Amino acid sequence: MAKQERAVRTRRAILEAAGAVFDEHGYTSTTIAMVLERADVTKGALYFHFPSKECLAQAVLDEQVPFGTVPSQPSKLQEIIDTTFVVAHRLLGNALLRGSVRLTVDQCAPPGVDHTGPFLQWAEHLMTLMGKAREQGELLPTVEPRDTVELLVGAFAGIQLMSRALTGRDDLGHRVSVLWGHILPGVAVPGLIGGLDAAPDRGARVLATMDADGH
Amino acid sequence: MAKQERAVRTRRAILEAAGAVFDEHGYTSTTIAMVLERADVTKGALYFHFPSKECLAQAVLDEQVPFGTVPSQPSKLQEIIDTTFVVAHRLLGNALLRGSVRLTVDQCAPPGVDHTGPFLQWAEHLMTLMGKAREQGELLPTVEPRDTVELLVGAFAGIQLMSRALTGRDDLGHRVSVLWGHILPGVAVPGLIGGLDAAPDRGARVLATMDADGH
Repeated sequence: MAKQERAVRTRRAILEAAGAVFDEHGYTSTTIAMVLERADVTKGALYFHFPSKECLAQAVLDEQVPFGTVPSQPSKLQEIIDTTFVVAHRLLGNALLRGSVRLTVDQCAPPGVDHTGPFLQWAEHLMTLMGKAREQGELLPTVEPRDTVELLVGAFAGIQLMSRALTGRDDLGHRVSVLWGHILPGVAVPGLIGGLDAAPDRGARVLATMDADGH
Repeated sequence: MAKQERAVRTRRAILEAAGAVFDEHGYTSTTIAMVLERADVTKGALYFHFPSKECLAQAVLDEQVPFGTVPSQPSKLQEIIDTTFVVAHRLLGNALLRGSVRLTVDQCAPPGVDHTGPFLQWAEHLMTLMGKAREQGELLPTVEPRDTVELLVGAFAGIQLMSRALTGRDDLGHRVSVLWGHILPGVAVPGLIGGLDAAPDRGARVLATMDADGH
């Protein structure tokens, strides 16, 4: 294995371990020693990639939005819907994503860590898709894309939090489906709604097609 | 002042101090000493009312839903709308409510503290109003009251969190207004929507009428 490839793998192993520890213990209670033990790397390697706990937290936060990547769809509203379901489904199995989300929603904002980042990055990511949806005539003329996008990001943050508290996120697919059932009538042109798929198992099905395509 | 009245006031002073400290520092970093200093009561008085930090946190959590009390309205959907705006507005000025909300949404669940309580209590409180709204013919036949209510509670939790992170909750009234703008078309019968008030300053106006009525 080339030296650079090894460095990339080590960095990823540390991030995944850090995500898991932040998810279980939160920012304040997490120590570098806990991450070291989980990642099974040397102290030198960890400090080479992440000189402090703050750097580690920032890197875990920066990993969040890439988890929302989904295959392109003819309807851009469907792509936005797919993003929410894929993230919801990945939260069940991916500790790095869970740790990143916990750092975003927990109120502690240690100096040097910007936990507003994921809110803004999600909003920008979805704004691009909303812009295309508008161009394609998918949106009702009353829709203000910025308002709708920020509502989706904020509401999703709270819905996953309530689902985690009440059912360990078991019912998150259902809750995301309910969100879309309530929001689509005020967002999508009537002719489009019947063709959109916002069923609770949408995330699992989209991820299955991604695995089949070798994503 | 009678002994019992004094005890009630002392208990309230402790709760308000604890809410402020939990809001600023979170559960893990809060100490009884910090609450003592803020409340200006004796150590004996504090331990008489709250034998542990867990008890204090539980009591702060239990104070949350009473902050959603609003005047009765002919439309029960309007009362539900008012509840969200009044809580949003009170979050700006009330540290006990802010501390209670932080304990609910922060992921740390110390043993002995049930932070699912507020989610369930809000849902029950709003379910009562939704039942009346249905009886009065305010809801579309497609509405499943439990789904709508849990969506509102979860979405509100996330919306206030995003607003706090991005603007210190300055734009929370606007965000709650956007939530209702998106949800009402899928919930309320068309004839009702025009008469419902979900403007960003609704919370301030409802609270002004409550003050005038001596609530």
